[in-house]
Amino acid sequence: MSRLLQLGAEMVRDEDVLLGYQADRLTERRPLVIGDRARLRSWTVIYEGSRIGDDFATGHGVVLREENEIGDRVEIWSHSVIDYGCRIGSDVLIHTGVYVSQFSVLEDGVFLAPGVALANDKHPIDKSNLKGPVIRRGARVGMNSTVLPGVEIGADAQVGAGSVVTRDVPAGALAYGAPARVTA
Amino acid sequence: MSRLLQLGAEMVRDEDVLLGYQADRLTERRPLVIGDRARLRSWTVIYEGSRIGDDFATGHGVVLREENEIGDRVEIWSHSVIDYGCRIGSDVLIHTGVYVSQFSVLEDGVFLAPGVALANDKHPIDKSNLKGPVIRRGARVGMNSTVLPGVEIGADAQVGAGSVVTRDVPAGALAYGAPARVTA
Amino acid sequence: MSRLLQLGAEMVRDEDVLLGYQADRLTERRPLVIGDRARLRSWTVIYEGSRIGDDFATGHGVVLREENEIGDRVEIWSHSVIDYGCRIGSDVLIHTGVYVSQFSVLEDGVFLAPGVALANDKHPIDKSNLKGPVIRRGARVGMNSTVLPGVEIGADAQVGAGSVVTRDVPAGALAYGAPARVTA
Repeated sequence: MSRLLQLGAEMVRDEDVLLGYQADRLTERRPLVIGDRARLRSWTVIYEGSRIGDDFATGHGVVLREENEIGDRVEIWSHSVIDYGCRIGSDVLIHTGVYVSQFSVLEDGVFLAPGVALANDKHPIDKSNLKGPVIRRGARVGMNSTVLPGVEIGADAQVGAGSVVTRDVPAGALAYGAPARVTA
Repeated sequence: MSRLLQLGAEMVRDEDVLLGYQADRLTERRPLVIGDRARLRSWTVIYEGSRIGDDFATGHGVVLREENEIGDRVEIWSHSVIDYGCRIGSDVLIHTGVYVSQFSVLEDGVFLAPGVALANDKHPIDKSNLKGPVIRRGARVGMNSTVLPGVEIGADAQVGAGSVVTRDVPAGALAYGAPARVTA
Repeated sequence: MSRLLQLGAEMVRDEDVLLGYQADRLTERRPLVIGDRARLRSWTVIYEGSRIGDDFATGHGVVLREENEIGDRVEIWSHSVIDYGCRIGSDVLIHTGVYVSQFSVLEDGVFLAPGVALANDKHPIDKSNLKGPVIRRGARVGMNSTVLPGVEIGADAQVGAGSVVTRDVPAGALAYGAPARVTA
């Protein structure tokens, strides 16, 4: 095995999966590390320079960029895109067609529903000032919701479907709407 | 032809199409049945155990999960994902980047615009209580709209773009907004 | 090189890229023209009959339909779909999972954030009356926003995340909400 590709035991990988894809923004090549029992489905691409735990699974057409730190038992479903430099805990489920921007933080047990988008740039495209949302442990974000840059969603909070989250949501709260307001 | 893959006449299929993809949640293999004149474009995957009528067409990167019942002249366009256990009638058009959740019902002539997401789970992730929306015949759902679990959209109703549909919409009505309200 | 595929110098192209894909709605084959230094990533398909400038780049899973006119230094990122007949200027960035409908106009320097959808059909599906939005030079549209048919977004205007743009936005304005209202 090349030092640039450090793959665990018992990987099951469809034919059309790209691993260690070169990131143009990095000036030198960096290793991709994936733990045991990964299940990677067709048309998934994982860039170089990420470190991923055990029991990782992807749907079809997943794009995982470089320099991500990912825990154990994480699933990323079809057509979701994880941009670079994120920290993702364990037992996280990123459903279908989600976009996670650069430098987002998803703690353990987070759930992102289909179509969720996390933003990191108040004044696109200003790459000097990117700040992704922080989604605390156990928080759940509903379908097609949008979370603005730097917003923090507290532990076990829940965001209703179709919301636009412009301010922090306290731990345990339920918030929804555009802009999202706390209701419980 | 294998009993597990029962394909009709005159199929036109790009090279990178996967048919009869194994569904991990099924304990035994089930046949995939597709009618005549299917047109399947690149990077489409169709899981095992669905039954699809004639003149079926997909765009690029379509994911169609297992145990779906689909009528004739149905089109599913690029990057749309249909989860398992749905019932879809005839003459249905599912446009680009749509997500249809498990156990959704789409009757004849339904149109789902780009970015529509249908939900089935009020308290994700509770798989014991999934209930998809029911979209009655001829109803049309506008771009980037979200339809909540168990909601029924009546026959020939129309939902405006960017709506969040939290309650039933009567037959023939026009509804829009977040939450969507009936206006005509 | 075939007359139907006119590719510039120094193209870098992943293996699974389809160029000059046949458009069923055209009655005769038309050339695809791409300028110099294109960078095309895996699972991108570019249909026949478009004319694209220099320094064009795509992410993974991009679908670019036929009869588009595209300037120089345009980037289209992963899973975005550009429908047919659009006019796109130079220095345009179309981010992840965007849908651009038929006959849209994007002038120079436009930015579309992840999940943006541009509509062209007030009464889907009426193909006799398609009219895409016009996004003037330097305008920026935020994440998961929806822009309705025929709407014009003025030069250097900015649309906030999660908006539904139902009316024209003046040049230089900031608009957001559903429906989007001008606030500055």
